[in-house]
Amino acid sequence: MSVPSAPAVPARDDFVTAELYARIQQFYAWQMGLIDDRKAEEWAATFAEDAVFEEASRMEPLRGRAAIAASCRKRADRLEAEQTDFRHWLGMLDVRAQPDGTLRTRSYALAMRTRLGGPLEIFASVVCRDHLVPDGNGWLVRHRSLQHDGSGQ
Amino acid sequence: MSVPSAPAVPARDDFVTAELYARIQQFYAWQMGLIDDRKAEEWAATFAEDAVFEEASRMEPLRGRAAIAASCRKRADRLEAEQTDFRHWLGMLDVRAQPDGTLRTRSYALAMRTRLGGPLEIFASVVCRDHLVPDGNGWLVRHRSLQHDGSGQ
Amino acid sequence: MSVPSAPAVPARDDFVTAELYARIQQFYAWQMGLIDDRKAEEWAATFAEDAVFEEASRMEPLRGRAAIAASCRKRADRLEAEQTDFRHWLGMLDVRAQPDGTLRTRSYALAMRTRLGGPLEIFASVVCRDHLVPDGNGWLVRHRSLQHDGSGQ
Repeated sequence: MSVPSAPAVPARDDFVTAELYARIQQFYAWQMGLIDDRKAEEWAATFAEDAVFEEASRMEPLRGRAAIAASCRKRADRLEAEQTDFRHWLGMLDVRAQPDGTLRTRSYALAMRTRLGGPLEIFASVVCRDHLVPDGNGWLVRHRSLQHDGSGQ
Repeated sequence: MSVPSAPAVPARDDFVTAELYARIQQFYAWQMGLIDDRKAEEWAATFAEDAVFEEASRMEPLRGRAAIAASCRKRADRLEAEQTDFRHWLGMLDVRAQPDGTLRTRSYALAMRTRLGGPLEIFASVVCRDHLVPDGNGWLVRHRSLQHDGSGQ
Repeated sequence: MSVPSAPAVPARDDFVTAELYARIQQFYAWQMGLIDDRKAEEWAATFAEDAVFEEASRMEPLRGRAAIAASCRKRADRLEAEQTDFRHWLGMLDVRAQPDGTLRTRSYALAMRTRLGGPLEIFASVVCRDHLVPDGNGWLVRHRSLQHDGSGQ
């Protein structure tokens, strides 16, 4: 079989520093821990005041930190009532520094839940794309877009 | 709908350095690799001599490195006899440096196994909380507490 | 019960720097993103010209970047036709610097797919062992060996 030569593709040279990468990894571990611990207001505080949260296959966009907090609180209360442990697991983090000092990130996320006494259900694979903006010593999510695998998007 | 303003919550500023974070990530990748490779004694050597290993929903605490090693050896021999590959997958690592020079970590863990010729079974989501103490150039686990999702704890 | 004392095992002191660890984490997040985005040629360009790709329980080794690209293109086209989102999720990364300036890595990988409108299927746990060689500012995979759990290897 004749196999054509693979075209030359320049390698990436825009990886971020270890300090920034570790910082963003820690940010996400903390942030996801907050929602999983049902700390809706603390979780919402990791979003910018004017943040937009999009999950196109599931709901209309949430606009603003207060709306994000309210939605999260409702969700947390429901999970509490249903005695369900929920985990957001992020990985495969890609961070791209933007010329304006903000960051664009992409990560894979698994959504999983375990009802009291029940089996683990890992039910969704999601691609999370964030726009992070600097805030004091840290970062806030200004825009989050969640794209569910299998949704045709 | 009137949405109340989200309360101000101070952002975290206690993230650890990249050097420490990468070190602990590597520690866990190595440590979990040891148990999955059924190297019970090497795995146990990553615990302090007086370590305590708690998994409240599953067993009485194990006290001391020797007891931890013996339990792990028994488990490894059983998996070997059952021809089962087991993986401990940790992620979402949160590291908090303590004033006394020790570390408190929290991570998510998935427990999964594949029997010879069988399907992959990811059967438990667990929150792992460790107390790590410095030991020479590295770290040892002095206390590990595993909390299974769905166990009501 | 008398529990024998656990033997002394020297702790590892060969962990790599945060800069290198973060770099390799980013490399894998990028590389896996390329195959999942069906960018077969860009993905193949992360392998050395003379790379070998082994997946013993599934196929004969692929030899050379061109063969790797062709195999990936075929696979990508099939997934496209089947309207299937595929994710390669790597974690538990272990990196060992070699005396000759190359790297040996080991990571765990989960293979998962979601068909259009269908459920998430996480169907394989795989151990990925790579030999990475320096290339300009970055790294290329010279050898990859994938070992599927449950395959008896």
